[in-house]
Amino acid sequence: MLIRNDTADDWAAIWPFLRVIVAAGETYTLPRAIAEDDARAIWMLEPPSATFVAVDDDGTVLGSAKANPNQLGPGSHIASASFMVDPAHGRRGVGRALGEHVLAWATAQGFRAMQFNAVVETNTHAVALWRSLGFEIIGVLPDGFAHPEHGYVGLNIMHRWL
Amino acid sequence: MLIRNDTADDWAAIWPFLRVIVAAGETYTLPRAIAEDDARAIWMLEPPSATFVAVDDDGTVLGSAKANPNQLGPGSHIASASFMVDPAHGRRGVGRALGEHVLAWATAQGFRAMQFNAVVETNTHAVALWRSLGFEIIGVLPDGFAHPEHGYVGLNIMHRWL
Repeated sequence: MLIRNDTADDWAAIWPFLRVIVAAGETYTLPRAIAEDDARAIWMLEPPSATFVAVDDDGTVLGSAKANPNQLGPGSHIASASFMVDPAHGRRGVGRALGEHVLAWATAQGFRAMQFNAVVETNTHAVALWRSLGFEIIGVLPDGFAHPEHGYVGLNIMHRWL
Repeated sequence: MLIRNDTADDWAAIWPFLRVIVAAGETYTLPRAIAEDDARAIWMLEPPSATFVAVDDDGTVLGSAKANPNQLGPGSHIASASFMVDPAHGRRGVGRALGEHVLAWATAQGFRAMQFNAVVETNTHAVALWRSLGFEIIGVLPDGFAHPEHGYVGLNIMHRWL
């Protein structure tokens, strides 16, 4: 598995699984029927933000991540990031590899910490992954997420120093 | 004092004090030298968000607030809001009146709670005001804000049920 910065051509490979993940409505605070142009604008970022793809040996895109300043101006020294792994390629460590890559990138860029604003508490796989990479929950927004199966559940705010 | 929804004409009255407040760099996670067009796009919102102004008897704009869904899709039932009071008209209860108005608006719109993502902890006037209106601190982003006088200070994440 290789992780590299994205190119515009990668969108055609990202959109099919991003759309499925967002449509499921279980993990992302994005409109479940998001339009492709809106999704592209949210996901395919320019400096000082960045988008990455994880690809296997034959070039298949397995997952993607984006990283960006979480706030502007006097808050721009804290990074945030988002991750999407193609469900067809789950359980292969793609999310962890993307996470490690993004943490290294944010450190190299001079960010002081990384914050996730909205990790759905029922997304236990993600919560455990981020904990294993050194993140701590610094707050929970109660009932912050309308889950299609579990109803209103909390959104974890997670933080890790860089 | 009257609080009403904004019109496009209000921007000419908002921009002078918004620019001063943002340039001071003590309370907002916005670029201190923000361009007017960027500021207008951030502040003057369309439905389902809203912008309000507080005006006195002669029509002078004393302050402004904006309110919006804090997240999209499955997170869009939680509101957020931002407030700017002209320093020339401070200590007259403008912030409190705007806060009460925004809470009533968000309740009427059907939001379930309001979240502030980034209340600078040294902005003790604001923290006390929001506490007095029923908000609680649900988390603190350590060193989340680069204050021009105090250095890195925390950002309070505040929450209130509606």
